[in-house]
Amino acid sequence: MIRFTNDYSEGCHPRILEVLSASNTEGNFGYSTDPHCDHARQLIRQAIGRAGAAVHFLVGGTQTNTVCICAALRPHQAVIAAATGHVCVHETGAIEASGHKCVAAPGTADGKLTPDIIRAVCDAHPDEHMVQPKLVYISNTTEVGGVYTGAELAAIRQVCDERGLLLYLDGARLGSALAAGGATLAELGALCDIFSIGGTKNGALFGEAICIQDPAIAEDFRYIIKQRGGMLAKGWLLGIQFEQLMRDGLYEELAAHANALALRLRDGIAALGYGFAFDSPSNQQFPILPDRVLKKLREEFHWEEMGKPDTEHTTIRLVTSWATRPEAVDAFLTALARA
Amino acid sequence: MIRFTNDYSEGCHPRILEVLSASNTEGNFGYSTDPHCDHARQLIRQAIGRAGAAVHFLVGGTQTNTVCICAALRPHQAVIAAATGHVCVHETGAIEASGHKCVAAPGTADGKLTPDIIRAVCDAHPDEHMVQPKLVYISNTTEVGGVYTGAELAAIRQVCDERGLLLYLDGARLGSALAAGGATLAELGALCDIFSIGGTKNGALFGEAICIQDPAIAEDFRYIIKQRGGMLAKGWLLGIQFEQLMRDGLYEELAAHANALALRLRDGIAALGYGFAFDSPSNQQFPILPDRVLKKLREEFHWEEMGKPDTEHTTIRLVTSWATRPEAVDAFLTALARA
Amino acid sequence: MIRFTNDYSEGCHPRILEVLSASNTEGNFGYSTDPHCDHARQLIRQAIGRAGAAVHFLVGGTQTNTVCICAALRPHQAVIAAATGHVCVHETGAIEASGHKCVAAPGTADGKLTPDIIRAVCDAHPDEHMVQPKLVYISNTTEVGGVYTGAELAAIRQVCDERGLLLYLDGARLGSALAAGGATLAELGALCDIFSIGGTKNGALFGEAICIQDPAIAEDFRYIIKQRGGMLAKGWLLGIQFEQLMRDGLYEELAAHANALALRLRDGIAALGYGFAFDSPSNQQFPILPDRVLKKLREEFHWEEMGKPDTEHTTIRLVTSWATRPEAVDAFLTALARA
Amino acid sequence: MIRFTNDYSEGCHPRILEVLSASNTEGNFGYSTDPHCDHARQLIRQAIGRAGAAVHFLVGGTQTNTVCICAALRPHQAVIAAATGHVCVHETGAIEASGHKCVAAPGTADGKLTPDIIRAVCDAHPDEHMVQPKLVYISNTTEVGGVYTGAELAAIRQVCDERGLLLYLDGARLGSALAAGGATLAELGALCDIFSIGGTKNGALFGEAICIQDPAIAEDFRYIIKQRGGMLAKGWLLGIQFEQLMRDGLYEELAAHANALALRLRDGIAALGYGFAFDSPSNQQFPILPDRVLKKLREEFHWEEMGKPDTEHTTIRLVTSWATRPEAVDAFLTALARA
Repeated sequence: MIRFTNDYSEGCHPRILEVLSASNTEGNFGYSTDPHCDHARQLIRQAIGRAGAAVHFLVGGTQTNTVCICAALRPHQAVIAAATGHVCVHETGAIEASGHKCVAAPGTADGKLTPDIIRAVCDAHPDEHMVQPKLVYISNTTEVGGVYTGAELAAIRQVCDERGLLLYLDGARLGSALAAGGATLAELGALCDIFSIGGTKNGALFGEAICIQDPAIAEDFRYIIKQRGGMLAKGWLLGIQFEQLMRDGLYEELAAHANALALRLRDGIAALGYGFAFDSPSNQQFPILPDRVLKKLREEFHWEEMGKPDTEHTTIRLVTSWATRPEAVDAFLTALARA
Repeated sequence: MIRFTNDYSEGCHPRILEVLSASNTEGNFGYSTDPHCDHARQLIRQAIGRAGAAVHFLVGGTQTNTVCICAALRPHQAVIAAATGHVCVHETGAIEASGHKCVAAPGTADGKLTPDIIRAVCDAHPDEHMVQPKLVYISNTTEVGGVYTGAELAAIRQVCDERGLLLYLDGARLGSALAAGGATLAELGALCDIFSIGGTKNGALFGEAICIQDPAIAEDFRYIIKQRGGMLAKGWLLGIQFEQLMRDGLYEELAAHANALALRLRDGIAALGYGFAFDSPSNQQFPILPDRVLKKLREEFHWEEMGKPDTEHTTIRLVTSWATRPEAVDAFLTALARA
Repeated sequence: MIRFTNDYSEGCHPRILEVLSASNTEGNFGYSTDPHCDHARQLIRQAIGRAGAAVHFLVGGTQTNTVCICAALRPHQAVIAAATGHVCVHETGAIEASGHKCVAAPGTADGKLTPDIIRAVCDAHPDEHMVQPKLVYISNTTEVGGVYTGAELAAIRQVCDERGLLLYLDGARLGSALAAGGATLAELGALCDIFSIGGTKNGALFGEAICIQDPAIAEDFRYIIKQRGGMLAKGWLLGIQFEQLMRDGLYEELAAHANALALRLRDGIAALGYGFAFDSPSNQQFPILPDRVLKKLREEFHWEEMGKPDTEHTTIRLVTSWATRPEAVDAFLTALARA
Repeated sequence: MIRFTNDYSEGCHPRILEVLSASNTEGNFGYSTDPHCDHARQLIRQAIGRAGAAVHFLVGGTQTNTVCICAALRPHQAVIAAATGHVCVHETGAIEASGHKCVAAPGTADGKLTPDIIRAVCDAHPDEHMVQPKLVYISNTTEVGGVYTGAELAAIRQVCDERGLLLYLDGARLGSALAAGGATLAELGALCDIFSIGGTKNGALFGEAICIQDPAIAEDFRYIIKQRGGMLAKGWLLGIQFEQLMRDGLYEELAAHANALALRLRDGIAALGYGFAFDSPSNQQFPILPDRVLKKLREEFHWEEMGKPDTEHTTIRLVTSWATRPEAVDAFLTALARA
């Protein structure tokens, strides 16, 4: 079985496995107060060009989104997100469980928000009988493979300033966005109030780094992490992993590998005459394939399904990762050509 | 200034004012444990044909919706509501603040849900990565004046049984729905797991009665009321009011008055050649009027605005109540004819 | 049956009933945006000597505490309260339901906090593995009849400044505290970040006024009110009542009446040789009486019980109000003397 | 520096490290739907003697407590815990943040609850103006080293049945309790509605297993895990670790090692004439030592402090683990003897 199911089907990159093993008995203080975390924080501050940023490490993505949003909002304040946004759909109401409404805006075809969409949401919430939209949630890449450029991000920052909004970027798949020419880490550091750098889907065993530029959000942030169950006892496990990812360009190298194979899939599928539901330059591809073809491919390959555009076709999601081998891509394309 | 702003611009019906005055010094135990509340409960149980129903009294509508939904759901369960539903829009995220997502479904033109809409929401939430839709929220009348018939309600009940859903009807404007030929109190008693009978907008100074048929929701309901700040110290004030509303058909009589004047408005406006944004048989009417006309009317009348269908017209909301005088309606129509 | 059960067994003072009746059909905008509320706000700002205070009106006490605390705290922040404090005990976990822990400190014998108690709570919460105590909750009078003097309040203010804490005073029984020589309204205005002036237990049908000096708490306060179900549709009902209470000294006059009768009870009971569980100068008295005596009195009088100091005695709570008649007090004392 | 700081200063037992490495590239479905988790579930069901138990895996302890309690309680229901209980003190109000009050009862000297303590809490919460105590939270070992025997646990189960309470046991340090002669896994399976088996503090890199006997709590449990941010993407990492811990008695062997060294510390310290704050048969020891002695030891050893019984002494906490070496214990005792 070859999996294009997601980008978290394997453990971690060998370099990370190696340091995890090497450090196993070194002994560290808990809760990310150790030298590995401190060093990883330093590397991240350099990478994003923000010497004063607060940097924290969490295990998973839902936790990351919940903690960041909880820390930023007062009770009546709401999140503005694309309707396809992870917080709107795939976190079992985690944000609502923390008390905040996610206002789902119709996004662009590739799952992005734009200044006009954001302004429209604000305009539709004029008074205290409605929630107060306060934090713009964007994901890069988006859930359907879209990538924000630096210019797009700057435009969103501008509307945030205009309307008194906070800007949070969920970087669960940030590696792929960076490797696809999206806004750079330095641009993120300059434009977002808070954003995450995802490790889980790009070579780490697990782990998301949170970078906070807004001191009001950063204040007492460790309390919020702990309260939401996000403080890992053996916190150095997170520091060790981000030390590796942030060293020697490993983070971008792994993402570039994933993206390259995704584009190879994309080009190969397109060459066979098939179309795509979303236009994605990233490690997720969304071809629309005939059900009779999928039936054959299913014996050998695994993917997730994203709905049926008509009764005889299905949109599938193919995801590549740092661990995907070129042979797997070729096998898929060969099988597709034959099917 | 003549107000068609809403149905809660005046105090209460004279009969209610009278008993409030008469009982002022009689002395009662607090928290709705008094004989007035008990008697009102009895009258309501008779009216809805459910001898075993639990009946509780709260002051306001947002409270009512929050308490009912909190009492019914586990943390991961969500509300299905029309996108125009009060809980989705006009309660400042009260339901989300209690931890539950409101899944906003595109409703019908008059703000209703249908079995197909409900099924579609359920089908779109297949697993534990998403909230679990569990409670169907409908309002009768809807926020845009729609009225559920008994047959429509029965069809929704059926899909609820089919899919294991709870059915909650928000009766903030139930009087108007009853008087417009909507599902009867007995049908509500038979078909809803829980519903409210609104007093605030139909002759009471304030007050909503909650009728619970589902024993699991009814269990410990007073705890939930108290916790959510809904337990009125001088609870008999609520009992006294519902004693009056439920006696001699007062509740339906007041609503019939409001509806009759709303239809008079509707017919008069239509006769002048204007159209409506929503088709409403109830005490809310939504004419689309030219902005230059509204400018003139504004000196004498007050209403709320509901958006602009084009640059020169505005949809306004005209609301009548038990307190609206026929002369006010006539004055509006005369002024409109002249404008 | 003569009730010393509580101070909310009757409706409202005749002057309030009169204006409620007189205003019944005058027509007002909803949600406390009316001239009565504006006028009442003005009267309160004068009374507390804070021209810039934000003033809001809610229906009940649990709502008031929840809204004020929600508006003031971030998620990880906690309330410091005496273990007997209303928020710790008698609100069915309303504060916890809004996400905040109430740290229950052992208070003084009469239910108060002191600077030392507050400092000790802070010292016991040194880091992010524990909640962050942030808001000091005091009630005046306390739940066991204690009264904060101006000097005591000033000392608490000082520790709040020292430790970066907010000070919230729950004035559900503020009238009685004022009439007993407690901190004045002007002192409250000068020393508290936020406090309430209780109407429900001092002559109003219902209603609590909230006075906010801290602009950060005041910001968007109406959103929080609405979200927590505290925004009364016919909000002018609250304004009208506080207009009366704040005019001609009615608020303090009613409380002075209640206190005077409570002290008459106290002195009469003491003269008969009985002791008290708490030393109270206010409208609640807590005599310890033999069970065989209580058995006889129970036929004619009603009260609440507060526990048994030994197998043959019970501490009872006797509460007087603006509506208590001197004859009721005399009847109790006579019956007690005979029992 | 020799650490007795806690039992999570090192990574994981070599056997676990080995399988984590070996499985790194095997490829698995996410979210604990993999064969490793299934196998670990099976091993746990056997160990606890409950073929029908639901078994779930989470990363950390605060998460575990929050998820279990959220899944079990309705909004007005509260936790009964010893005042020293982890949920009361050291989780930054995580339980309150999920809406539930923790009623802190004075526990026994070694941090336990007893039937009488539980009954007293229930009796003190008679009505809907207070929270409804519903779930008994106990930790084994307790936070101060106490261990529940099977008989003690059975007695608590009895009071739970008597009063309609749920019983939850937090097994963050369950290994140490098992190895110290506490209630067995089979007794836990038979007596608790829900309990956890802690991996983080007993040889795993991270991970807690949750065993649920009550079907009402088990229903939709994965939704609650996901909503609270507890669903690990690479869930097999948890399964793999518990496969090892539950095989060949490794779990109890590691705990026995830790306990043995803790008792060696205890006996050695006692032999030097020092006393202890708590009587502990487990891997945490709480000697009371002179400050002047601690000053010397501090250069070489690390521990946490638990308060000062007098101005010249401090209670310290010494914790041993699977990773503690006998040489470390001996070094401490030698240094103490010299100090």
